[in-house]
Amino acid sequence: MDKQNINKIVLAYSGGLDTSVAVKWLQDKYDAEVVAFAADVGQNEDLEPVKEKALETGAIKAYVEDLKEEFLTDYAFKGLKAGAKYEAKYPLATAYSRPLIAKKMIEVAKQEGADAVAHGCTGKGNDQVRFDVSFQALAPGIEIVAPLREWEFGSRQEQIDYADKEGISVGATKESPYSIDRNLWGISIECGVLEDPAEEPPADVYQITTDPEEAPDEPEYVEVTFEQGEPVALNGTEYGPVELVDKLNGIAGKHGVGRVDMVENRLVGIKSREIYEAPAATVLLTAHRHLEDLVLDRETAHYKKVIAEKYAELTYYGQWFSPLKDALDAFVESTQKYVSGTIKLKLYKGNATVVGRESDESLYQENLATYEKSDTFNHDAAVGFIELFGLPLKVDSTIHKE
Amino acid sequence: MDKQNINKIVLAYSGGLDTSVAVKWLQDKYDAEVVAFAADVGQNEDLEPVKEKALETGAIKAYVEDLKEEFLTDYAFKGLKAGAKYEAKYPLATAYSRPLIAKKMIEVAKQEGADAVAHGCTGKGNDQVRFDVSFQALAPGIEIVAPLREWEFGSRQEQIDYADKEGISVGATKESPYSIDRNLWGISIECGVLEDPAEEPPADVYQITTDPEEAPDEPEYVEVTFEQGEPVALNGTEYGPVELVDKLNGIAGKHGVGRVDMVENRLVGIKSREIYEAPAATVLLTAHRHLEDLVLDRETAHYKKVIAEKYAELTYYGQWFSPLKDALDAFVESTQKYVSGTIKLKLYKGNATVVGRESDESLYQENLATYEKSDTFNHDAAVGFIELFGLPLKVDSTIHKE
Amino acid sequence: MDKQNINKIVLAYSGGLDTSVAVKWLQDKYDAEVVAFAADVGQNEDLEPVKEKALETGAIKAYVEDLKEEFLTDYAFKGLKAGAKYEAKYPLATAYSRPLIAKKMIEVAKQEGADAVAHGCTGKGNDQVRFDVSFQALAPGIEIVAPLREWEFGSRQEQIDYADKEGISVGATKESPYSIDRNLWGISIECGVLEDPAEEPPADVYQITTDPEEAPDEPEYVEVTFEQGEPVALNGTEYGPVELVDKLNGIAGKHGVGRVDMVENRLVGIKSREIYEAPAATVLLTAHRHLEDLVLDRETAHYKKVIAEKYAELTYYGQWFSPLKDALDAFVESTQKYVSGTIKLKLYKGNATVVGRESDESLYQENLATYEKSDTFNHDAAVGFIELFGLPLKVDSTIHKE
Amino acid sequence: MDKQNINKIVLAYSGGLDTSVAVKWLQDKYDAEVVAFAADVGQNEDLEPVKEKALETGAIKAYVEDLKEEFLTDYAFKGLKAGAKYEAKYPLATAYSRPLIAKKMIEVAKQEGADAVAHGCTGKGNDQVRFDVSFQALAPGIEIVAPLREWEFGSRQEQIDYADKEGISVGATKESPYSIDRNLWGISIECGVLEDPAEEPPADVYQITTDPEEAPDEPEYVEVTFEQGEPVALNGTEYGPVELVDKLNGIAGKHGVGRVDMVENRLVGIKSREIYEAPAATVLLTAHRHLEDLVLDRETAHYKKVIAEKYAELTYYGQWFSPLKDALDAFVESTQKYVSGTIKLKLYKGNATVVGRESDESLYQENLATYEKSDTFNHDAAVGFIELFGLPLKVDSTIHKE
Repeated sequence: MDKQNINKIVLAYSGGLDTSVAVKWLQDKYDAEVVAFAADVGQNEDLEPVKEKALETGAIKAYVEDLKEEFLTDYAFKGLKAGAKYEAKYPLATAYSRPLIAKKMIEVAKQEGADAVAHGCTGKGNDQVRFDVSFQALAPGIEIVAPLREWEFGSRQEQIDYADKEGISVGATKESPYSIDRNLWGISIECGVLEDPAEEPPADVYQITTDPEEAPDEPEYVEVTFEQGEPVALNGTEYGPVELVDKLNGIAGKHGVGRVDMVENRLVGIKSREIYEAPAATVLLTAHRHLEDLVLDRETAHYKKVIAEKYAELTYYGQWFSPLKDALDAFVESTQKYVSGTIKLKLYKGNATVVGRESDESLYQENLATYEKSDTFNHDAAVGFIELFGLPLKVDSTIHKE
Repeated sequence: MDKQNINKIVLAYSGGLDTSVAVKWLQDKYDAEVVAFAADVGQNEDLEPVKEKALETGAIKAYVEDLKEEFLTDYAFKGLKAGAKYEAKYPLATAYSRPLIAKKMIEVAKQEGADAVAHGCTGKGNDQVRFDVSFQALAPGIEIVAPLREWEFGSRQEQIDYADKEGISVGATKESPYSIDRNLWGISIECGVLEDPAEEPPADVYQITTDPEEAPDEPEYVEVTFEQGEPVALNGTEYGPVELVDKLNGIAGKHGVGRVDMVENRLVGIKSREIYEAPAATVLLTAHRHLEDLVLDRETAHYKKVIAEKYAELTYYGQWFSPLKDALDAFVESTQKYVSGTIKLKLYKGNATVVGRESDESLYQENLATYEKSDTFNHDAAVGFIELFGLPLKVDSTIHKE
Repeated sequence: MDKQNINKIVLAYSGGLDTSVAVKWLQDKYDAEVVAFAADVGQNEDLEPVKEKALETGAIKAYVEDLKEEFLTDYAFKGLKAGAKYEAKYPLATAYSRPLIAKKMIEVAKQEGADAVAHGCTGKGNDQVRFDVSFQALAPGIEIVAPLREWEFGSRQEQIDYADKEGISVGATKESPYSIDRNLWGISIECGVLEDPAEEPPADVYQITTDPEEAPDEPEYVEVTFEQGEPVALNGTEYGPVELVDKLNGIAGKHGVGRVDMVENRLVGIKSREIYEAPAATVLLTAHRHLEDLVLDRETAHYKKVIAEKYAELTYYGQWFSPLKDALDAFVESTQKYVSGTIKLKLYKGNATVVGRESDESLYQENLATYEKSDTFNHDAAVGFIELFGLPLKVDSTIHKE
Repeated sequence: MDKQNINKIVLAYSGGLDTSVAVKWLQDKYDAEVVAFAADVGQNEDLEPVKEKALETGAIKAYVEDLKEEFLTDYAFKGLKAGAKYEAKYPLATAYSRPLIAKKMIEVAKQEGADAVAHGCTGKGNDQVRFDVSFQALAPGIEIVAPLREWEFGSRQEQIDYADKEGISVGATKESPYSIDRNLWGISIECGVLEDPAEEPPADVYQITTDPEEAPDEPEYVEVTFEQGEPVALNGTEYGPVELVDKLNGIAGKHGVGRVDMVENRLVGIKSREIYEAPAATVLLTAHRHLEDLVLDRETAHYKKVIAEKYAELTYYGQWFSPLKDALDAFVESTQKYVSGTIKLKLYKGNATVVGRESDESLYQENLATYEKSDTFNHDAAVGFIELFGLPLKVDSTIHKE
């Protein structure tokens, strides 16, 4: 299909300058109708004004959908069960939201008879890949437009002039010096002074976590209960996913837990410096891992760590809707059958320290582990075990070293 | 060879009750001479009295060797370069010391014409495997005796009675309720109340780290400089390995950095609850990883994480002297060529947070990463990249989903 | 539980000398009743006489079960879908049968109220591990007896004397110089002259495959149809698993297909030289892999190869009933959804060559692959793709090599 | 740099229509001088006429270099030691030649003061990536031109018309219906009727291997001797790399060994059907693997198989000059220390069957493997080994299944 024949476009709309300008630009450039789509993934923003702004700016229709629970249950919690962190640090908050939003946009596109989708990502980030690859995987025939990769504005000012000319409200509020993306699972912050990886981030960069040095002097304990790998209760009280994560963001954020400052490798071939805040995700990933330490056997636990690397990589790379991701999910799901129990953590000035774990499924057997009289471990077995375990090295040494 | 023909045994000797009783027991049981061997791997103990006690207890000779530098350079730093932590948490301090001590004992055995080696490990721990497998790999013909796996003492009291009878000084000091192993790279603590993984460790369990709640209210910055993956300077001052790690243990330990509380999978098939303290190791592993984030390309960095899992596993399992370990070392060494630079960390109440990184070898290119005007990244390239990157999923979807 | 309190033992019984002597020996040694269990896994032997011999030899009861279909469906075909070959060559025939037999023995033991199970494996093979680990995994409390690891016969003659004394028929037929295990998925042959890996196996070692040099001069084509990874038809005719594999063993064996001659690494730490014959398994594994080449996307296909290595290893090591095996199965099953289609092979003097593949699920798109005019591939996309794909190496080179 | 400022271009030149037209087209399009570069990697073609044709067609200079030995020693043999086959089948012949040619072209470019390099690859193959990524890695600043991706010829005829107009000799010989690339390590054949993966390749597609059905009725034995992983002798006679591979191609090709017919996944996101012939490579890879079976310990052997997958992938993807490839090489090299010995194969109508192996470094120990009286394996050790090996599954089962 030729892009010039596009009639109707579903645009991922945030209400900001870029996507507002995009509404007009798409209409002009493609002579097409624009349907705005805004998702609530827990960015803590009232989307009703966003909807109105979309319509004012020229969208023929505007969708606002609350995806918070689906976001957690079908995206972030899957990654939690996998134990996924990109490059050992990033809990993947933004990376989980993109495929979900893409999926909903495709649904809207089908419903609206749209022949194209559009997003406000630039040409050097990961999000364009996550959107585009998700679109390709979910609706192989659809056209994809990325105004920020295509338009001709030479500078921010030219874009603002265009907005003014077109009657798009630019907003009086001072723009943040940072580029920020937020959802329930965490916040990504980049740009500005952060682009120098030698410099400590200024205090104002952090949005939802207290500076550990300003955090309470008293530690706070929190108990997280999991059932089959998913968190279901805090301090003994059951909550739905959204409420649980929201509460935990509050508690852990207050104690300065969940800050990440890293230089990471983007899929498009460059390194970037990123700041993340993910208080709940940090507590949950830590607690989940310690629970697995208790209930998974060694071989499963070790192999699952390798799976987790691939899981994080696929997610970060935007390959959420892929056969390999499905297969990894099947692997992970199989391992979560007994990942049920309660982990107790102490939150204190940036630390989330596991201090206790209990599970009916625990494979820790005190009578095998103890050095007390109740020991039931067969010490004699070790001799035969070591003899055969070490035999290949003994033979190797006999032949090769003597 | 028949164990009954053993004439001379080199015993890993610590000066404690177990190995002191072992000196006598080995003489009695095998009618053999015992040579005691004690290594200084940074356990912070005067070994001269240990030597004397060995001789008093009946050893025909006693060796005391300072292995601190070799321990760091050839063992702990190799693991640091690999990024090895067992089950994502344990920095492997004890696991590095066992093969080194085994190697030195074999050297002594050859020098002394001994036909056997002995150690004071029990039949359910990892250390017996590490010693025995190292012995097998280094001297395939040598006999191995592990008195604690063999002897008949039914209780601690029987062992003490034997000691009294044989005139072995048991020591008046109250024994620790914990089993502790210490070296420059860290401390392992187990037994006693720690055997209940639901319980928070009592304050007295920790040996070299301040409780984060008692740590200084002022953060302290520390800069660690690496050359080809090895730490060479602190705060701009060059130190040898031993002094550097020793200083860093002091600085980081003071701020409560480096505590680990985990349930881990032993090689012998059981889970155990372990407490570790590794202030310097924690700071160095963290700093090294962030430096690698800066100087390694993505594919190398991602694959190296998988290698690190295997590296930690082999080390923990006692397979240090193995062809696979050598091959992994060759891989790791190849990646460290440009791992040079300085990482700045903030130490504060248990946290060791990287706040800045600088390296002449940095692959972070601000002109590629920036969203400012100095941007040299080719945004157009993304379109083609994503098209081909996503093509397999698009085809898959076209065929399988429609 | 103490072995001396054993009352009833379920013995894996083959009718051969070892397990016949074991019936008596177990009765004598443990003063226990023995229940014989023989399984038909396609060893091409009438088991009725085996049953009678068991009873004659003193078993209080003898079970004979036809497990052929279950063997294929729940064991060999799972490995086929995984693409598992141990050390790239062995199709795992014996390794699949052990856990199945162990499972059935545990069922019989529960039914019969037996408190122990026994098998006729020696102390240096893999099968003892496969049986014992399966028993431990399926019935953690049960006692395991392995007469051949325990009994005191110093030589084959002593064992025969014992058999004579106890009235056990030893059999007049000349024993095979080889140790052979056979089932529908393949045959394992070891011992005798095969113990010298420098020597070509003599012609008499092979049981079910024609020597390629003696095989028909005319090639034969065979088409294998798969549905979701499982073979369902040959040359267009549908068959059940047992009939299909049986027929294919005949066809492929006639053409000398499926011989394996290898030195392999046993779990118990030694290398052994093994001969395998697996005509049907070889054809099916080859055809399945070529079908996957057609219907799996690249990322899934590549990752699945790594999974296959682990799958083969776990199976060979006897860890069939393990959480990790379950998780790998879940992964594999997820990938087989579209592994449906027909592969055409040419069988000729030892070769099974794929010469054609067809599938409704094929991801091969001639219009993307062709260099003819029908080409729909966007050649321009390559430029952007390569630019970003190669960017990390370009930056690396800029910094590190100039 | 702007492509329009290119002054001198080094072009990979084959003498065929595409690169001959490219000489002219590059001169026209960029107003630049063209230096032709042709490499002898064993394509069995006299390159002197190629050189002349380059000059006739307008190249200001033409280089012809014999790279055969370097190709084997530094490229193909490295992959041999790694055990690399892409998607388990393709021995990577073309994939090894591209980075070598790229490297030489960069050397020529530096010598000649050229500011660009060019090749005759299309926009949908792997070779463009291999060239371009190698160029980027070796000379990050250089311009890359790929005429076939850029030029405007709508059909083969238009290109021929251009050639005629420019006085480029098109050649009277009938063009092959296939696209063929050949070197010492193997031949790649694609296009034409091969584009239908359901069809058996016609006999005329194969260039250097006899049809197995036409191959000699008498098998031929060949002994290959390796030193540290590299082949050094055939049938006891030492040869240099080029002569050895050349001879072996002859011997094995005569017996129909080394044909590959596969559907593979290209890096650019499509599947293609490829035919390869690699007689020597097939024999050497098979022999090398069987030798490793003899001399590598189990853990190294198993892990190396995973490394081999990555090695093949990186090579196929054109990432030869990358830090990860260097690190994998270091791993592989470390494992080859004892890969010395002689493998005997029987070549017969398409089969290359290993029938004997001998090595002074063999870890196969007949006294450990035998079931004869000379057995020195400690059968008792198995009991303890299995008890601890199976303990995690026993505990898992006790907790989770009862």
